[in-house]
Amino acid sequence: MSTRTEASSRVAELVARMTLEEKLAQLVALWEGRGGSGEGGDVAPMQDAMQADEAGFEAFAAHGLGQLTRPFGTGPVEPVDGARAVAAKQRWLVEHTRLGIPALVHEECLTGLAAWKATTFPAPLSWGASFDPALVEEVGAAIGASMRSLGVHQGLAPVLDVVRDARWGRVEECISEDPYVVGTIGTAYVRGVQSAGVVATLKHFVGYSASRAGRNLAPVHAGPREVTDVLLPPFEMAVLDGGVDSVMNSYAEIDGLPVAADAALLTGVLRDRWGFGGTVVADYFSVAFLHTLHQVAGDLGAAAAQALAAGIDVELPSGNAFLEPLAQQVRSGAVPEALVDRAVERVLRQKARLGLLDRQAQDYAEVGPVDLDPPAHRALAARLAEESVVLLAGDGTPPLAAPARVAVVGPNADDTAALFGCYSFLNHVLSLHDGVEPGLEIASVLDALRAELPGAEITHVRGADVDTDDTSGFAEAVAAARNADLCVAVVGDRAGLFGRGTSGEGCDADSLDLPGVQRGLVEALLETGTPVVLVLLTGRPYAVGWALERCAAVVQAFFPGQEGAAAVAGVLSGRINPSGRLPVSMPRSVGAQPYSYLHPRLGGASSVSNLDTAPVRPFGFGLSYTTFTHSDLRVAASRVPTDGAIVASCRVTNTGDRAGAEVVQLYATDPVASVTRPVVQLLGYARVHLEPGQSADVELDVPTHRLAFTDRRMVRVVEPGAVRLFVGRSCADPVLDTEVELTGPVHEVSTADRRVVGVRITPN
Amino acid sequence: MSTRTEASSRVAELVARMTLEEKLAQLVALWEGRGGSGEGGDVAPMQDAMQADEAGFEAFAAHGLGQLTRPFGTGPVEPVDGARAVAAKQRWLVEHTRLGIPALVHEECLTGLAAWKATTFPAPLSWGASFDPALVEEVGAAIGASMRSLGVHQGLAPVLDVVRDARWGRVEECISEDPYVVGTIGTAYVRGVQSAGVVATLKHFVGYSASRAGRNLAPVHAGPREVTDVLLPPFEMAVLDGGVDSVMNSYAEIDGLPVAADAALLTGVLRDRWGFGGTVVADYFSVAFLHTLHQVAGDLGAAAAQALAAGIDVELPSGNAFLEPLAQQVRSGAVPEALVDRAVERVLRQKARLGLLDRQAQDYAEVGPVDLDPPAHRALAARLAEESVVLLAGDGTPPLAAPARVAVVGPNADDTAALFGCYSFLNHVLSLHDGVEPGLEIASVLDALRAELPGAEITHVRGADVDTDDTSGFAEAVAAARNADLCVAVVGDRAGLFGRGTSGEGCDADSLDLPGVQRGLVEALLETGTPVVLVLLTGRPYAVGWALERCAAVVQAFFPGQEGAAAVAGVLSGRINPSGRLPVSMPRSVGAQPYSYLHPRLGGASSVSNLDTAPVRPFGFGLSYTTFTHSDLRVAASRVPTDGAIVASCRVTNTGDRAGAEVVQLYATDPVASVTRPVVQLLGYARVHLEPGQSADVELDVPTHRLAFTDRRMVRVVEPGAVRLFVGRSCADPVLDTEVELTGPVHEVSTADRRVVGVRITPN
Repeated sequence: MSTRTEASSRVAELVARMTLEEKLAQLVALWEGRGGSGEGGDVAPMQDAMQADEAGFEAFAAHGLGQLTRPFGTGPVEPVDGARAVAAKQRWLVEHTRLGIPALVHEECLTGLAAWKATTFPAPLSWGASFDPALVEEVGAAIGASMRSLGVHQGLAPVLDVVRDARWGRVEECISEDPYVVGTIGTAYVRGVQSAGVVATLKHFVGYSASRAGRNLAPVHAGPREVTDVLLPPFEMAVLDGGVDSVMNSYAEIDGLPVAADAALLTGVLRDRWGFGGTVVADYFSVAFLHTLHQVAGDLGAAAAQALAAGIDVELPSGNAFLEPLAQQVRSGAVPEALVDRAVERVLRQKARLGLLDRQAQDYAEVGPVDLDPPAHRALAARLAEESVVLLAGDGTPPLAAPARVAVVGPNADDTAALFGCYSFLNHVLSLHDGVEPGLEIASVLDALRAELPGAEITHVRGADVDTDDTSGFAEAVAAARNADLCVAVVGDRAGLFGRGTSGEGCDADSLDLPGVQRGLVEALLETGTPVVLVLLTGRPYAVGWALERCAAVVQAFFPGQEGAAAVAGVLSGRINPSGRLPVSMPRSVGAQPYSYLHPRLGGASSVSNLDTAPVRPFGFGLSYTTFTHSDLRVAASRVPTDGAIVASCRVTNTGDRAGAEVVQLYATDPVASVTRPVVQLLGYARVHLEPGQSADVELDVPTHRLAFTDRRMVRVVEPGAVRLFVGRSCADPVLDTEVELTGPVHEVSTADRRVVGVRITPN
Repeated sequence: MSTRTEASSRVAELVARMTLEEKLAQLVALWEGRGGSGEGGDVAPMQDAMQADEAGFEAFAAHGLGQLTRPFGTGPVEPVDGARAVAAKQRWLVEHTRLGIPALVHEECLTGLAAWKATTFPAPLSWGASFDPALVEEVGAAIGASMRSLGVHQGLAPVLDVVRDARWGRVEECISEDPYVVGTIGTAYVRGVQSAGVVATLKHFVGYSASRAGRNLAPVHAGPREVTDVLLPPFEMAVLDGGVDSVMNSYAEIDGLPVAADAALLTGVLRDRWGFGGTVVADYFSVAFLHTLHQVAGDLGAAAAQALAAGIDVELPSGNAFLEPLAQQVRSGAVPEALVDRAVERVLRQKARLGLLDRQAQDYAEVGPVDLDPPAHRALAARLAEESVVLLAGDGTPPLAAPARVAVVGPNADDTAALFGCYSFLNHVLSLHDGVEPGLEIASVLDALRAELPGAEITHVRGADVDTDDTSGFAEAVAAARNADLCVAVVGDRAGLFGRGTSGEGCDADSLDLPGVQRGLVEALLETGTPVVLVLLTGRPYAVGWALERCAAVVQAFFPGQEGAAAVAGVLSGRINPSGRLPVSMPRSVGAQPYSYLHPRLGGASSVSNLDTAPVRPFGFGLSYTTFTHSDLRVAASRVPTDGAIVASCRVTNTGDRAGAEVVQLYATDPVASVTRPVVQLLGYARVHLEPGQSADVELDVPTHRLAFTDRRMVRVVEPGAVRLFVGRSCADPVLDTEVELTGPVHEVSTADRRVVGVRITPN
């Protein structure tokens, strides 16, 4: 505590002797070479319109500099060269600015550090599918270590938006449609990154994923109860349990009020209620968007004033609003300088925590060689990919019994880009730089199948593009399938930005059919009579109900990353027993969107609409090559106080003949509450690896906080009454059930409550 | 005033001497013969599950009876027989109950009185398309007169839900996606009905239309600002400007709270803010649904207690919750009897206003002959149909220059049911009673075309069903088209209830393609090269962008009613110059739903989604056979106080060679506001009939209240600042523009503000 107090008083003294220009300089960033060496560079929304041509670094940073924007992820930069360039700038700041404060360097890091030649991990939907927070924490630590090795202090991840509509292009960047899965796995990622001494950034606080019709940046139609009970909890967990040090606002407007101007959220919830002490950074250009897009501010100065007052401390990626426009507001008296000081103090306290206030020029003298793709990181990428592949359907054809002739078909079969999300360096940046090598060893699914099935005769036909209407390749693909014992069709998305893909930021879907003519291709293959194994490499769940019964198997991988092809091939060969579970519902149709399994009774099957809303594969679903049984569901006490914990346990047994992992899923239903509640909600989960014949006792210690909701008074409470529990294979497939009674008065929850389910696995 | 006070004190005295049983009897209804004489009868949601078998009338009504439910619209009853049966029951109540109070008789009346042999008017979307409140008021008066002639006191219309998602089956029952169009036309309907001494009922208060994914009864995801600024205004207008005497709650839950239990809406907004003094009646079974569907009440008694406390006065259609379950709550002290008294007083004051407290048995002695379909009503139905047909596209082929050979094709060409909405007696009730004649003279479009084009050789082929995948009729239809000079394809919806149609309550759409194979049929017809005129008889706007350029013309009629076929045929022949305008956007795709033209800038075309949200035909669009020019847009003052009025005028001239009607549309944009505002909003409108060469000056006196919205404090205000105005041919087609400055302080609006735009049309 004394260190924190010391740092605080040191920062206060520092701020007291800063000029207004020096203060504002700490609140902005410089984005140099936004297109690498000038060639292209559309990596942020409306970048061309919003990003002013800036003075050179020394002119821009004359009064100091808050942040350096994306020195590694804007264009292909040899990592060590980039690190040296950053170090040179830091030296200059230490030596040539009055206060000598280095800049904080931030970079994207969603699926690995967004830098050339850095390990690229599976996309976040895959993290969700793994149901394995411990592994995601290791991944976060690896990514954090890579950042630290380059002199990067802050990573702009994780995305804690709860999936609400499968049409949204950024679904691939999200973890799950269940807030608790998002919260636990997101918190693990934060812990991992921050364990390396790097600041993680929660985004997008809050509401972005609930945009109307799943269109990127469309308005959010949600009431405060939905915001509090569905959208905020992952952030609450990552702040309170993960100790995250930065939060990025959402571009969204919720019910007419842009979050970037919403003090109730950015200050009231985040700081006053949760006690958050880090920085709030603006999503790129979002301060200026208050003027140009939301039109709630008449000019950039008013936009800056609103954002600052609401609680945004740092404008990213540049200084459009927080430099001269904000300076004028302060000089005119329209904005109290104390608001600027508040933000500067938060920034400098963070820099103090990072040790930046004590840096000397010689600290930046040497930059050694860096390896952003070490074997340990690749091994982690492989493990996460292996745990996240979901077997959606199968008639027993895979594992493949050494087929003689295999036709591998589809646009994603031999395309390594199909393995990566839109924030991977490869799809985010390198796709704009023709001829630059990825700098990573990456196998396509075709490559991996050749390695996996050395005895098989493998033919490959692309057959179709991801997203054109060209069917000219169908005939050759059909011929290949006809002449094979098995056809593996690898289809799905191509991630990109702003219309350059079928998934990703600014790549929303108007339909949830597979893009282009891919469904037609698969149906043509099916008509040959050759068994077809369908492999989906996608960034969102698609409406593939038509394929589930007709294909020999359907394998879902959500952009599984650099080692993902081997994971898929391993599942097909049987080397890997699939253990991923769906973190999102597989929709029945685009017409049923938005959909969440967390709907109240009224949103589900009912006799008052002609349409069936049930997804074709429910949240939590996933098949295995072995079988598991559940038994002995017990609760430690059948009556639990509303501020207590439900301790539930069950035994899970691997009754098949292969090792495998089951994700034990405990669900709850609250049959009567003061407001409508989901028909079912996940309470807790545990991934359990079991050898054949082995069993384990799984105990979930569930704080009643998991059943909290916002009551009619808009207070978050746990209400007394019966709660039904079940353990199931998915949210729609209960296996064992029981009931507990919550007793005592209505419990008003607070930050002192435990939020996270304790898990104890005891192998027998 | 003295009468009202007198009535009040008389009612108070009456209540003081009533037993609890007598009070509760006034709060419930009896639904006899819910399937007519027992044959069928699924006319309300979950009716089979919810509607208990009731005691006979005399046993049920032993303590009196609040309402009689649907004595004419439950099954086919000869009107005069029904009226006599009702009169007999009233006589019994007067003579055999202690207090002698007659029942209030309610019936559905959305597209005309829902009774056998009553004139069936166009569906409400057609009212919206007419942009003619004066005509809708006449229709309302006609419907009211029919009700009164049968002894019906209350009609369960209009539906004031603002269209938010084209997928919802009940879109056909709504007037528009613009709240002001809903409010003005809905208020006109209320005035008309109530001018006949019959109580109108606003429904569904509030939120029903915003259900998730357009699924009937799905939860509503909306914040309080959207509720206040978009969903509530039509109700506010009909209460304050229409003086409506009853309101029905919505089944919806909004952000987790069912409206039926929401005192803030049912009492706070409706009574405390707006001063509403009538009754709030429950949508059918919605009190019990608090227990069975929403699960916010543990039993029917708790459901009754919540509904009563929130402000529901009368349970419809029966007494599931308000009889014995509520009685137990009162007897146990859980519900104060004063709450029961509050509801009973409202019911009895309404009965007093209707004169029911003074009825003697002899008042019910004689029931004369009734004519529910008199020529005057049919003429009104025809006028409204004629004004509501919208020409969506046309290359000049219609008006048809006496074609020699016409092929009339499509499932709706010779089906009179295609003319009617789901609450028409024919589709609502009679469709369940095979073999019963409609009892009305109704021409199909085919009949009407034969009458309209006596010189033409007309062939007819059905070609396809509305909603099957049967294409076996295509060949014959194509042959007919090939052998004709012109093909008229009449396609669209079949209205029904609960899955018995493609539009209507419980008939939601998962796709916005035309149902079944109808698009395929039309495309096959187009391939013949014969010009195809596409006639859409639908209950919702469909995604027919593919047809707009390829068809010779596209004519949209929203269930145009009993005289609708002649209106459509008249438009095709040129006898009628089309003058309807779209009250809803014609969507681009189902994937773009929900959509409203009232989106803020963020919800429209932007560079941050790859998808175009713009509808294929915008709100307000409609072609004419003549041409109109607009000129001289002027504002009386360029600076207007925030509590004043913008007086805008322009000249409109018929520059073509045919008489026609233009709908002058004045739109506004608020470029900077404290919360996000729609890119454009309709301020006011005026339907103007002009002879060839004639012009008129149209003055719109727009109270600034039209620009009010809920600010960040959640106060409804008019803010100072610039407002851009334009007159346009649709919301997306500005012709002339200007600007005014609102001046002075922020104006907090109140019920004392004028809400309605004054219209003055001065022909030149």
